[in-house]
Amino acid sequence: MATAPPHQLSEHDLATVDRYWRAANYLAVGQIYLMDNPLLAEPLSLEHIKPRLLGHWGTTPGLNLIYAHLNRVIAARDLDAIHITGPGHGGPATVACCWLDGSYSDVYRDVPRDGEGMARLFRQFSFPGGVPSHVAPETPGSIHEGGELGYSLSHAYGAAFDNPDLVVAAIVGDGEAETGPLATGWHGNKFLDPVHDGAVLPILHLNGYKIANPTVLARIPQEELDQLLRGYGHDPVYVSGDEPEAVHRELAAALDGCLDRIAAYQRAARESGSAPAERPRWPMIVLRTPKGWTGPKEVDGLPVEGTWRAHQVPLSGLREHPEHLEQLESWMRSYRPEELFDDQGRPRAELLSHVPVGDRRLGSNPHANGGRLLRSLPLPDIRRYAIEVGKPGTTLHEPTRALGALLRDVMRATAERRDFRLFGPDETASNRLQDVYEASGKGWQEELLPVDEHLSRDGRVLEMLSEHNCQGWLEGYLLTGRHGLFSSYEAFIHIVTSMANQHAKWLKVSRELPWRMPIASLNYLLTSHVWRQDHNGFSHQDPGFIDHMVNKDPHTIRVYLPPDANSLLAVADHTLNTRDLINIVAAGKQPSLDWLSIDEAVNHVHRGISVWDWASTDTGREPDVVLAAAGDVPTLEVMAAVSLLRAHLPQLAVRVVNVVDLMRLLPPDDHPNGLPGRGFDAVFTTDKPVIFAYHGYPWLIHRMTYRRSGHDNFHVRGYKEEGTTTTPFDMVVRNDMDRYRLVMDVIDRVPGLALTAIAVRQRMKDKRVEHHAYIRKYGEDMPEVKDWSWT
Amino acid sequence: MATAPPHQLSEHDLATVDRYWRAANYLAVGQIYLMDNPLLAEPLSLEHIKPRLLGHWGTTPGLNLIYAHLNRVIAARDLDAIHITGPGHGGPATVACCWLDGSYSDVYRDVPRDGEGMARLFRQFSFPGGVPSHVAPETPGSIHEGGELGYSLSHAYGAAFDNPDLVVAAIVGDGEAETGPLATGWHGNKFLDPVHDGAVLPILHLNGYKIANPTVLARIPQEELDQLLRGYGHDPVYVSGDEPEAVHRELAAALDGCLDRIAAYQRAARESGSAPAERPRWPMIVLRTPKGWTGPKEVDGLPVEGTWRAHQVPLSGLREHPEHLEQLESWMRSYRPEELFDDQGRPRAELLSHVPVGDRRLGSNPHANGGRLLRSLPLPDIRRYAIEVGKPGTTLHEPTRALGALLRDVMRATAERRDFRLFGPDETASNRLQDVYEASGKGWQEELLPVDEHLSRDGRVLEMLSEHNCQGWLEGYLLTGRHGLFSSYEAFIHIVTSMANQHAKWLKVSRELPWRMPIASLNYLLTSHVWRQDHNGFSHQDPGFIDHMVNKDPHTIRVYLPPDANSLLAVADHTLNTRDLINIVAAGKQPSLDWLSIDEAVNHVHRGISVWDWASTDTGREPDVVLAAAGDVPTLEVMAAVSLLRAHLPQLAVRVVNVVDLMRLLPPDDHPNGLPGRGFDAVFTTDKPVIFAYHGYPWLIHRMTYRRSGHDNFHVRGYKEEGTTTTPFDMVVRNDMDRYRLVMDVIDRVPGLALTAIAVRQRMKDKRVEHHAYIRKYGEDMPEVKDWSWT
Repeated sequence: MATAPPHQLSEHDLATVDRYWRAANYLAVGQIYLMDNPLLAEPLSLEHIKPRLLGHWGTTPGLNLIYAHLNRVIAARDLDAIHITGPGHGGPATVACCWLDGSYSDVYRDVPRDGEGMARLFRQFSFPGGVPSHVAPETPGSIHEGGELGYSLSHAYGAAFDNPDLVVAAIVGDGEAETGPLATGWHGNKFLDPVHDGAVLPILHLNGYKIANPTVLARIPQEELDQLLRGYGHDPVYVSGDEPEAVHRELAAALDGCLDRIAAYQRAARESGSAPAERPRWPMIVLRTPKGWTGPKEVDGLPVEGTWRAHQVPLSGLREHPEHLEQLESWMRSYRPEELFDDQGRPRAELLSHVPVGDRRLGSNPHANGGRLLRSLPLPDIRRYAIEVGKPGTTLHEPTRALGALLRDVMRATAERRDFRLFGPDETASNRLQDVYEASGKGWQEELLPVDEHLSRDGRVLEMLSEHNCQGWLEGYLLTGRHGLFSSYEAFIHIVTSMANQHAKWLKVSRELPWRMPIASLNYLLTSHVWRQDHNGFSHQDPGFIDHMVNKDPHTIRVYLPPDANSLLAVADHTLNTRDLINIVAAGKQPSLDWLSIDEAVNHVHRGISVWDWASTDTGREPDVVLAAAGDVPTLEVMAAVSLLRAHLPQLAVRVVNVVDLMRLLPPDDHPNGLPGRGFDAVFTTDKPVIFAYHGYPWLIHRMTYRRSGHDNFHVRGYKEEGTTTTPFDMVVRNDMDRYRLVMDVIDRVPGLALTAIAVRQRMKDKRVEHHAYIRKYGEDMPEVKDWSWT
Repeated sequence: MATAPPHQLSEHDLATVDRYWRAANYLAVGQIYLMDNPLLAEPLSLEHIKPRLLGHWGTTPGLNLIYAHLNRVIAARDLDAIHITGPGHGGPATVACCWLDGSYSDVYRDVPRDGEGMARLFRQFSFPGGVPSHVAPETPGSIHEGGELGYSLSHAYGAAFDNPDLVVAAIVGDGEAETGPLATGWHGNKFLDPVHDGAVLPILHLNGYKIANPTVLARIPQEELDQLLRGYGHDPVYVSGDEPEAVHRELAAALDGCLDRIAAYQRAARESGSAPAERPRWPMIVLRTPKGWTGPKEVDGLPVEGTWRAHQVPLSGLREHPEHLEQLESWMRSYRPEELFDDQGRPRAELLSHVPVGDRRLGSNPHANGGRLLRSLPLPDIRRYAIEVGKPGTTLHEPTRALGALLRDVMRATAERRDFRLFGPDETASNRLQDVYEASGKGWQEELLPVDEHLSRDGRVLEMLSEHNCQGWLEGYLLTGRHGLFSSYEAFIHIVTSMANQHAKWLKVSRELPWRMPIASLNYLLTSHVWRQDHNGFSHQDPGFIDHMVNKDPHTIRVYLPPDANSLLAVADHTLNTRDLINIVAAGKQPSLDWLSIDEAVNHVHRGISVWDWASTDTGREPDVVLAAAGDVPTLEVMAAVSLLRAHLPQLAVRVVNVVDLMRLLPPDDHPNGLPGRGFDAVFTTDKPVIFAYHGYPWLIHRMTYRRSGHDNFHVRGYKEEGTTTTPFDMVVRNDMDRYRLVMDVIDRVPGLALTAIAVRQRMKDKRVEHHAYIRKYGEDMPEVKDWSWT
C-alpha cells in the first residue's frame, strides 16, 4: 500500500469526484425512467419514458457518492479493494458506476461506453429481457445480491479472511442494520486476524428511512449510536451533510484517515509477526446524507428528498401529471449532463481521472469474480482415512471423526495457501471433527486465557454461535475464490434457510453469465441430526432443510446421505472439489456400524443408488419386496429388519437397496443426477412393494418419485414430527421407522404374507410393546437393539 | 407496585435466597444423575445412577440464582412478573425451581413436593416417557422453548407489550447473545411504550463459555461491553463474582435498584399521560458468575467449574471411574440437603419464605399460560367490507386493502382492551393495509419529526426491519394471551422459518398438556408474493415457506390461498379467532379481478375446495378435463385459459375447480381438514386429466395428492424457480403457468384432442412467442393480457 496522500482534497480531486457522482446520478435516473433520448438531446416527452417505472432511487446517490470516492483512494494508493453494497436495492447506482469505469462494457460488449451504450443501459434496467433492479450476479464487481437484506458485513468478512492485501468497503444500509444477521455481523471483527486477513471498512449509510418508516439507527441519540458502534469494537468517523462540496471534503478525509489507520494496524501486526494482544479498534465511517439526495425536493406539495417518499420512484404517473415530466427533465438536467458526457455520449475525461486501471477498478476486481482466482483444493487420497471393514455391520465408527482426519489434512495442505476454512456455530468438536485442530486452531482475536484450548490468532476454523455469520462468512469466502465447509446441527441449519436460498439463486444466475467463473461449491455437513438428539429433544429435530433446498434449481442442489464412515469419506471426496453447487451431506457423529469397505463406498457414491447384493436374498430370482434406505439410521433399521426377515421368514426374497445420492431418485428430466427410468425400475422393480426408510420427512420421497413407474408401490417411513428427549431407538419407534415396524410393513404389503406370517407380525408388535416397557423402566434401549449387529 | 424495600439484603433474606439456591442446585444435579436415592439416605451407588447422563449443568446454577432472587423481589413488591430463560438448555434449573415453589406439583399431581415426588422429578428428567432436557412447554411458567437460541428478548418484549403491570425478567445467555436475532432483539426497547406496556429487565448472564469456546461478550474488554449495552439503550448494572454471599448481596441490590428505576420511569410517564420525549434508559443487569458454579472444580485433573467443560454433564463414565461417583456424592452433599429438605423430602419452610403466593409464583403466573387470559377477538361482520361483485371477473380490487379495512376495525374494537397488534418489517402500507393507521399509529419511542406519518408513542402497529423481531414479538404476544397478525413479503418469511418451526413444535406439545390453555393462532399474511415482484426480482421470489410448514404437525398448520378480495375477507373471518394454529394466508396486494360475492366467498372458504359451476362447461355431463387453481394468480390464468377454451374448443366439457384451503387436498388420515376420498374424487374425478395451476412449487401438490385415486392424472404448473425483474405476465410464462400453456396442457392431455386441436395449440404457442417479442419491445404486457377480464 502506498503512502497516504495528504487528507485535504485538492480542487481538482473535488471536481473529479463531484463530476463522477453527478454522472452516476444522471445515469441512475436515466435507468429508472428512460427508454430513449438518453442524452436529453431533445426535450423529454412521454414516448421517452418507460411504461413501468421500477427501481429504488432513495439509496442511489449515497452509493454513487461512495463509489466515486473509493475510485479516488484506490487509484491514489493502488489499493486492492472491493465494495459490498448492503443497500443493494440501489441497482442503478452500481450499474451506473461500473459503466462509467468501463468494467460494465468489458463484460457486456453490447453496452459500450457511448451514447448507443447509454441508451441500452437505460432501456435494459428493470425491463423484460434486461437486468434486474437490484445489485445482482449480473452486476460486475459484486459478490452480494442486494435483494434480501442483512448479509453485507458477513459477506465482507468472508471476503477479507485470508486476503491480507484486500480492503473490503462494506456499505451497510440503515434499514439493513435493523436485521438480526447484520446486528451480529459487526462481531466479525473479533475473528479478523490483522496479519493474515485483509480489512473490512464498514460504511454505515444513515439516510434515515426505509420504505415507509424512519430507521432505528438514524433516530437514536447520536451519543447512543456512538456507544453502539464503539461497543461493536469500531472507532467511528462521522460524515454528515446535504451540501455536496462539504460532504466531499469530509468523506475524502474520512476515507484517507481510515485507510491510514488500517494500514498502520496491519503494518504493526505484520512486522511483529502475529496479531497484537489487543484487537485493533478498526475504523469505520458513518455517512449521514439525505435519502434520495439531489432528487426532487417536493412532489405534489409533499417533501420527497430526505424522506421515505424517495425510496422507490419519486416521480410517477407521468402520463397523468405532465408537470412530473417537466420535473423529471429539470432533475436530470440539474446534473449538467453536457459537462459530463461528450456529444457521442462518452464520459468526459475529466470525470474519469480517478478511475483505477484494469483489475483495480471496483467493477473488475478479480476478488469479486472469485472463480478467476480459484485453485483446486488439494485433496489427499481418502484411502488413507478409510475404516477397515471385515464383515459388514459388525464394527462401529463415528463417521464424522473419519471425516475430521481428512479435513485435518486438507487444512494442512492449505497451510501456506490459506484458501480453505471450516465454519460452525461452536460445534466442530461436538461434531467429532476435532482432528482439524491438529492442523489449525480456531481463529480468535479476544483475550486468551490459560484454560483455553485450540484458540489461535491465525486459526482457520471459525466458530461463533451465529449460523448467520457462519453462512455469510463462508459465502463471502467462496465468492472470492476459496473453499470451505459449514458443519451444523441439522435442525439449526434452518436458521439460514433464507440465506441458502439466496445463494442458490446467485449460483443459478451466475452460471448463465459467461464472464462469471465457477466458484467452489458450498458444502454443508449436517450432523447431530434429527435421529440422535440425546441431550436435547424435539426442538433439535428437524430434517426439513433438505426439502427446502430440493425446491431450488436442480443444477445447483445435491443431497448425500452416506450410510457409514467410509461412505462419508467417499462423499467428501466426490463433493469437495465441485463447483457452483450446494452440497448437503447429512451424516451422524455417533458410533455406527460400518457397512462398506472404502472401495465399495466409492462405487456406491459413484452410483448413487446401489443394490446391496450381499444383504439381499433375491439372488437369481425376482424379489418379493424391496427394502430401501437413505440415511445412516434408516440403513441401520432396514438392515436389522432384513436380519429379522431372514430369521423369521427365510423364504422371502428380499432386495436391499441403499440410496446415498438422493437426487438420483428424481427423473433425469428433473435433475442432472436423476437415474434413467430403466435403471430405476431395474433397482426398485415396477410391481413389487418397496418399503423405504428415509432420513427425513417421508413425503419428500413421494414427491421425488411420483413420476416413477412403480411409485404406487412405495411405502415410505421417516421422521413425522414425533420426538422428545429419549433413547435413540425410541425415536425410530415413535416415528414408525423401527425394524419391527418395517417387518410389519413387509408383511402387510407383500401379497399373501398377511395370512401366513400372522405370528411373526404379532411378535414384532409385541417387541414394540416390550420396548416401551423396557425404556420406561431402565432408561435405555434393550440390549438386543442397542448392541445389535449384522450377522 | 409497592414501595421498594431498602437495598440492603437482611441476614434472614440472605439465608433464604441462599437456601433456595442450594436446594435448586441440589435438585438440578439430582435430575441429571439420579434414578433413585434422591435424599442420599444411603451412600450413592451405581444402581442409583441413570444409565444415560443427559442434560446441561453449566448454565443451571446461574438460572437458579436468578430465580431465587426474583422470588424475593416478587414477594416483597407483590410484583406481577414472569421470567424468560434464554439459556433454556438449563431445563433442570427451571424444573427444580418451580417444583420448589409448588407450581410444578399444582399441574403435575403425580410429582408432589415430597420425597416420592422428588424421586419422580429426578427420574423423569431426560428419561423416556419423562420430561425433556430443556425448558419447554412442559415447564410451568415458561413461554420460551430453550432449544434453539436467540429469541429470549423478542419473546420478552412481545410479552411486555400492552401488559403495563408486568415485568418480564429476560435472562440472556452469552452464547445466545452471539446470534443475530438476539443481537437485534435489544432494539425492542425502541418500541416499548412506558405508559401502555410493561417492562423488560434483561439479565445478561456472562458465564463465559459455550459448548467448547469462550463467548464473545464475556471476552471483549469491559469498556467495550459497557458501550455496547449503552449503545443498545440500556443502563447496565454489573454483578460479578464467585463468592456466594457477596454475589447474593450485589444481585439483590441490583434487582432492587433496577425495579425502582423501572417503577419510577413508568410512574413518570403514566402520570404525565404519555411517553416522554426521551426514551428511558431502561436498566439491565450483567451477571458474571462461573459456568457450572458450585459444581466439580476439577475432573480427572482438568479444570471444570468456570470452563466450557461444565456445559453438559461434568462427571461422566461413573461405571468406569468409581472416583467420579464419589465426587458426585460429595458434590451433592456440598449443598447440605439435610438443611434443605425434611426427612420426608419436603422443602423446609426456611427456604420457602420468599416464595410468592399463588399466581404470583413464577411457575404459576397466568401470563406464562396465556390461554388463561385470552379473550375472543371482537370481529366485525365482514359483509361491511365486502366488495360488490356484479359479474365475476370484471372488476378489480386490491385484496389486502379490503383486509386492511377489516383490520382497522379490529384495531378500533380493541382500542381499550389493547390485545391485538399488527407486526411487519416496514411493509404495512406497501402491503396496502394502511387503513389500520386510522385506528392506530405505528409504535415508536424515538425522536419524532414533522415529516413523519402515523408514528405514535402508543401505536399497536409495530414495524421494524427485522423479521426475527416481528416473529418473536408476535409469539411473545400470543403466548401471553393476546392476538396478532404478521404481514410479510412472501419470500422473506423464510428468514423466520426456523422460528416458525419452533413455534409449531411448541403448539404441538402444548396441545398435549391439559393444563396449557389454548392460545390465539399465529396468523401470517404473505403478500407481495412470488408472482408480483415488479420492483424487485428473483431474490424476492420464493413460495417455499408453505412447503416447509406443511411438514409440521398437521393439527397445527393451515394454508389458505384466497383467489380474490372477498375470499381474503372470508379467510380472515375464518382464521382470526382460531386457537393453537399457524394460519398461513398468501394473497396479493395488486388490483386483481373479483370472482366471488361475499356469500360465495364464505361458502368457498367453508368448503375449502369448490367447483365453480358458473365458469364450468360440464353441466349435466362428465367433464373432459378439470382445470384447478390454488392462489390468486393461478386463478387468473386458469380463468383466462377457460375463456380461451370456450372460444376455441367450445365442445370441450371443462370443470373449473378452485382450492382456497390447501390442506383439503390431503387425505383425512393425514390432516384434520383433509377432504374425504369420495368428495375428492367427486370434484377431481378419478380418470380425467386435471390441469392444476398452483401458487407455489408444483411438486407440493403431488406430495399432497399422491394417495388420491386420480393422482396420476394430475398435471401441476407452478413456480419453478424462474424469474427476474420483469412483467407480471412474463413471470407466469417463464414458469409455464400462463393461460396459453394451460390450454396447450389441456390439448396435450385430453385424449384425442392433440389431433383435432392442432391449430389451436399452434395458435397458443404463437401467442407465447408474440408475448416475448411484445414485452421486449414495449416493456409491458400485451393489452389483451393486461386488460383481460372474464366475459
